[in-house]
Amino acid sequence: MRFTSEQRLDDGVLERDFTLNEIPGILWTPASVSAPVPLVLVGHPGGLGKMYPRLVSRARDSVAEGFAAATIELPGSGDRPRSAAAEEARAGLRRALRAGETVGDEIVDRLVLPLVERAVPEWQAALDALLTLPEIGGPVGFSGGVIAVGVRLAVVEPRISAALLFAGSFVPRATFEEARRVTIPLQVLLQWDDEGNDRQAALDLFDAFGSREKTLHANLGGHTGVPWFEGEDGARFFARHLK
Amino acid sequence: MRFTSEQRLDDGVLERDFTLNEIPGILWTPASVSAPVPLVLVGHPGGLGKMYPRLVSRARDSVAEGFAAATIELPGSGDRPRSAAAEEARAGLRRALRAGETVGDEIVDRLVLPLVERAVPEWQAALDALLTLPEIGGPVGFSGGVIAVGVRLAVVEPRISAALLFAGSFVPRATFEEARRVTIPLQVLLQWDDEGNDRQAALDLFDAFGSREKTLHANLGGHTGVPWFEGEDGARFFARHLK
Repeated sequence: MRFTSEQRLDDGVLERDFTLNEIPGILWTPASVSAPVPLVLVGHPGGLGKMYPRLVSRARDSVAEGFAAATIELPGSGDRPRSAAAEEARAGLRRALRAGETVGDEIVDRLVLPLVERAVPEWQAALDALLTLPEIGGPVGFSGGVIAVGVRLAVVEPRISAALLFAGSFVPRATFEEARRVTIPLQVLLQWDDEGNDRQAALDLFDAFGSREKTLHANLGGHTGVPWFEGEDGARFFARHLK
Repeated sequence: MRFTSEQRLDDGVLERDFTLNEIPGILWTPASVSAPVPLVLVGHPGGLGKMYPRLVSRARDSVAEGFAAATIELPGSGDRPRSAAAEEARAGLRRALRAGETVGDEIVDRLVLPLVERAVPEWQAALDALLTLPEIGGPVGFSGGVIAVGVRLAVVEPRISAALLFAGSFVPRATFEEARRVTIPLQVLLQWDDEGNDRQAALDLFDAFGSREKTLHANLGGHTGVPWFEGEDGARFFARHLK
């Protein structure tokens, strides 16, 4: 893990860009840290540059609770090399959406499952590296991003203690089965009028999670219309489980 | 409105019992009030005595935000006179539940609609009286209780600015139509495994509300298993809309 730049944001938060095995990432830590702090991994749909304003806003919500926050680029997004198979799956998705067709399970599987297979070990490697920093101690939460990635991480990565998931992306069939094996506390966000999202599938996925503590927050509005107060609600969810 | 007793709770909250047109009620106000405060009406399914521990806990959440909180007994509950029609409707409900039958729309209508017709003007009269007190200024929120009562109040009572509703009671068909006319901000609680409650009906009701700001909080567990943090979340919802 190599830090490539750092800056102080106006509220004193320390923002550092890093690369890890050629994967770019960003780490945010509180203005001053006297003891090792918990960490929130900030998920996203890919494209750190484009997503930056929303990522830094979510990171600030965590840092305000005294946590560190970190993110890495997804495989095939941002400046990372594209894979022919992933590009073909995306083209298939775009064709289906343009034609106004239902996006079939095969397209979703081809689009999402290889991403899960590649991204999850990368997040785990990032976790290995981040937890060696003296200012970061855990516990660790995972927040948002591609929900199939979050579900897989919740199942395979015992260092993740709680997850805030966004039910706003395509869900492979296998993820519903995996969801039953999730046992950590969950908060699940659902945008009630998300055009590209199947509301019933999101409710079915919430139902499937094996966790004893799980909360669904559904809000009126489309995919990008998550209300500001959910940022604070998410930070409080992590405060309950990471402190 | 006549105060019949008062006591200071251990945290300094002033709790006063009152009667209004022979209806018993309870008012909670902060330890000290320097300017008129907003008011939260604390709804419930009937029976102030039995419900007291939960009512005082919810009242404290509001008082902690600097609000007053008040409740009144429902018609036909607690020490108030029973009506033959209501008792017959309740017996019909108990028979259906004991027989493991689906509770039909007719039973729900006979049980809930007369309650709405009688209770809503009583809550409005309580509001008239409470708003004459120098320590209470508004705005006003309504919290919980029989959801059909909350929906009707949200439609007919312009002094109510926000409502926190509990989707855990039988919903008459007419209430789904009324829900479309609700425009105030809403937070709706749903217990995902509420035995006596139709989950799909609750989701349909949430969908029906006409409000531009509406949030559903669904939690794992049965009817009485609402997690403690929803009390704080509810207080924050009212803090956003009543301050």
